[in-house]
Amino acid sequence: MFMRIDHIGIACHDLEAKIALFSDTFELTVVAREVNEEQGVREAMLHIADGEGGSSYIQLLEPLSPDTPVGKFLAKRGEGVHHVAFGVPDVAEAMERLAGKGVRLLDERPRHGSMGSEIAFAHPKDVGGMLTELVQAAGAPANVKTDRM
Amino acid sequence: MFMRIDHIGIACHDLEAKIALFSDTFELTVVAREVNEEQGVREAMLHIADGEGGSSYIQLLEPLSPDTPVGKFLAKRGEGVHHVAFGVPDVAEAMERLAGKGVRLLDERPRHGSMGSEIAFAHPKDVGGMLTELVQAAGAPANVKTDRM
Repeated sequence: MFMRIDHIGIACHDLEAKIALFSDTFELTVVAREVNEEQGVREAMLHIADGEGGSSYIQLLEPLSPDTPVGKFLAKRGEGVHHVAFGVPDVAEAMERLAGKGVRLLDERPRHGSMGSEIAFAHPKDVGGMLTELVQAAGAPANVKTDRM
Repeated sequence: MFMRIDHIGIACHDLEAKIALFSDTFELTVVAREVNEEQGVREAMLHIADGEGGSSYIQLLEPLSPDTPVGKFLAKRGEGVHHVAFGVPDVAEAMERLAGKGVRLLDERPRHGSMGSEIAFAHPKDVGGMLTELVQAAGAPANVKTDRM
């Protein structure tokens, strides 16, 4: 089902400060910056590695306001890992497969993620306490890569 | 500095139950089981993907007792992501490099990690609230791969 660890999503109070910290400390390069109004975040993707199943990143997330999911997470738990995302060839198919195993999904259908991806979240209580994101990368239609699933 | 996301370490109360959950839900295969007395954990590695920079895993961690670091984490925060590990070609060199940038390390020298690796932890407060592990895989001596760092 999973082709890669797509990214680690890290909640932070100050995106620019954390970009500077991670770029310098870990010698990582920012490959994308976006504002996702639907998810209530300002974000940046820092490239880690490439593999057969796609690329891996650190994603830094700053909430657009305190009443967003990431804003509430920060108020409750402070800065740190917010979610983990795994690459799948077809997010709709992965959602269906997980739902068939009794995993609750936080999305009824795929929504827009970073860098043109299609994503969906699974309920952390059904998967070991880890807020889990499914990511179908941009330009990764199911009919090309279904054999990997 | 980082060649891959090596693994996501997930703290849990019942290792066998979580192995069953993750194996079934995410269709992952357990590739190693270990008891690490030094770290006070019973653990399993579930394979996610391979890449040029090495392989990626989910690591499930059950504390050997409540007074271990993972036991205390569970009591305070419950099940979920405990740490994130990144692959490096030479853990001692990566430690030195991070220390030179003012990052506090939780280890003075590398210690034994999963599957014969050498590891060290960086203080979460110095790297965005994420407990960060450096991993030099078994059979990955610095003199072979220093050019990747």
